[in-house]
Amino acid sequence: MKAEVEARRSSNSRRRKVYEGKAKILYEGPEPGTLIQHFKDDTTAFDAEKRAVLEGKGVINNRISEFVMTRLNAIGVQTHLIERLGPSDQLIREAEIIPLEVVCRNIAAGSLSQRFGLPEGQPLPRPIVEFYLKDDRLHDPMAAEEHIAAFAWASPQEIDDIRALTLRVNDELRGVFGAVGITLVDFKLEFGRVRDGDVSHIILADEISPDSCRLWDSATQEKLDKDRFRRDLGGVVESYAEVARRLGVMS
Amino acid sequence: MKAEVEARRSSNSRRRKVYEGKAKILYEGPEPGTLIQHFKDDTTAFDAEKRAVLEGKGVINNRISEFVMTRLNAIGVQTHLIERLGPSDQLIREAEIIPLEVVCRNIAAGSLSQRFGLPEGQPLPRPIVEFYLKDDRLHDPMAAEEHIAAFAWASPQEIDDIRALTLRVNDELRGVFGAVGITLVDFKLEFGRVRDGDVSHIILADEISPDSCRLWDSATQEKLDKDRFRRDLGGVVESYAEVARRLGVMS
Ligand SMILES: Nc1ncnc2c1ncn2[C@@H]1O[C@H](COP(=O)(O)OP(=O)(O)O)[C@@H](O)[C@H]1O
Ligand SMILES: Nc1ncnc2c1ncn2[C@@H]1O[C@H](COP(=O)(O)OP(=O)(O)O)[C@@H](O)[C@H]1O
Ligand SMILES: [Mg+2]
Ligand SMILES: [Mg+2]
Repeated sequence: MKAEVEARRSSNSRRRKVYEGKAKILYEGPEPGTLIQHFKDDTTAFDAEKRAVLEGKGVINNRISEFVMTRLNAIGVQTHLIERLGPSDQLIREAEIIPLEVVCRNIAAGSLSQRFGLPEGQPLPRPIVEFYLKDDRLHDPMAAEEHIAAFAWASPQEIDDIRALTLRVNDELRGVFGAVGITLVDFKLEFGRVRDGDVSHIILADEISPDSCRLWDSATQEKLDKDRFRRDLGGVVESYAEVARRLGVMS
Repeated sequence: MKAEVEARRSSNSRRRKVYEGKAKILYEGPEPGTLIQHFKDDTTAFDAEKRAVLEGKGVINNRISEFVMTRLNAIGVQTHLIERLGPSDQLIREAEIIPLEVVCRNIAAGSLSQRFGLPEGQPLPRPIVEFYLKDDRLHDPMAAEEHIAAFAWASPQEIDDIRALTLRVNDELRGVFGAVGITLVDFKLEFGRVRDGDVSHIILADEISPDSCRLWDSATQEKLDKDRFRRDLGGVVESYAEVARRLGVMS
C-alpha cells in the first residue's frame, strides 16, 4: 500500500492543483469536465481554529464515500463519483458547486440543539433539511429559502430539487447505516450544477463520510464520527475505521 | 392629559393584569375575547440587557400603532386593533399568539448585515421575510420553515398566510411612510390565531411603531427608530415624535 500511495502522490504531483481545501485537494482530471478528489488526513473544526493530522483518515473517508455514493448512484441519485483511483483519490465529475451546506437531521444534536434548546439525542418529529451559506469567513450562517432566492445562490427549482434529493439520500443512508447497527443522526451535503447538452441539473458532490455525518452506535450510542475530534473524545481514526469495517469496505 | 393618564391608570389598576412584557402590559378587556394593551415607556434592547425609561414613548407608540393598524384594517389586513382608549391604551382582540417574530426587510441592516456580511443600507433585490422563534432565553433564534413545520409552531397554511400578509403590510407601510419622507428599512410583526365560529384564522397582533421598525429619514438617512437607543445616538423620543408628527397623528 505504501508503494501505491507513493505512485499516486507522484502522479498527482504532475497534475495541476485546482483547489486545496481543509480536508481535500482537487486536481485537474484526465478528461475535460473531470477532477481528481484527493482525501487528506488533515482534520479541522470550528472554522479551522482546531486542526490535526489524523493518519489513515483520508484513505478511510475515500472508501466510505465511494461506497455510499455508489449505493446512491444505484438508486438513481446522481453523484459526482466516477470511480475510485487509489487509496485516497477518486475520479469525479466537475460541478459548479452551489455555495450551500445542506444539512439533514433525524435526531437533535450540535447546532440545532443549541439553537432551539433541544436535548442532544431527542428524535425529531420528522427529518429537517437546513441550508447554511458555505462561507468560512461568515462562519457558515444559516440561510432561509428567502435568502437563497433573493441572493440567487440557487433558483427556487434547484432548492426544491436539492431538498428532494437530500431526503432520498437520508432514506438510503438510514438504511445502509441502520443495517450495520449505526444510527444516522445528521449529515451535511454539497450539491453542484452540471450541464448535459443544453440542460443544467443538480448532482450530489463533495463527500459522505464520518467527517460529514453524525453516526452513533445504535446499541451503545457511542459516537463514531468527527464529534470525537471536536469534543476531544480520542480514538477518532479507530471509530472511522469501525464504520468502514461494518460497511464491509475495509477489513 | 395628566388627568386622562391618571384616570386610565386607576381604571387599569382595577383590571386583572394578564401579562407584563418588556414594553407593554396586557389587561383583561371589558368583554370576553378582548384585552387592553397598555404601552409602557420602558425600553429594552439586546434581550433586555440594556434598559431605560423614555418618558412619552408609550403615548407616541400607541398613536402610531393605532394609525398604522387602522390603515391596514382599511385595506383588508385584519388586525387586533378595536379602538384606542386613552393616551397609552388600546382595546384589542385577544389572539393566540404564534411564537414567531416575523421580520420583513427592504434594505440590509442589523442582524441581516451581520449574518451575510452585507453593508448596512444596501437595498435588497426583493423584500425578504424571515422568521425568528420568539424566545428571549434562546435569544430569538432564526428559524426556517422546516423548523416551524417540524415543531408545529405554525401550520404550513399559516406560514403561507403569514408571509402573504407580511408582504401586504410591507407594501402599505412603504407607501404610508414613503409619503412623509421616511424609508421603511425593515420591521417586525407578530401574528395570532382567532376563531370566528368554527374556523381559525390569522390576524396581525402586537404593535407597529418605531420600536419594531427601522425608519430612516429619506433625505438625510437619519435614524428615526429604536436603533437610536440601541446605538446610544440620543434623541430617541424626539425621533419617535417626529415620526408621529409627520404621520399627522400628534402635533
Ligand atoms: N464535483 C465537484 N466539482 C467541483 N468542486 C467540488 C466537487 N465536489 C466537491 N467540490 C469542492 O471541493 C472542495 C473539497 O475540499 P474541502 O477540503 O472539503 O474544501 P473546503 O475546505 O472548502 O470545505 C470543496 O470546496 C467542495 O465544495
Ligand atoms: N392580540 C393579542 N392577544 C394576545 N397577546 C398579544 C396580542 N398582541 C400582542 N400580544 C402579546 O403581548 C405581549 C406584548 O408585550 P411586550 O412588552 O411586547 O412583550 P414581550 O416582552 O413578550 O415582547 C407580547 O408577548 C405579545 O406577543
Ligand atoms: Mg469541505
Ligand atoms: Mg414585544
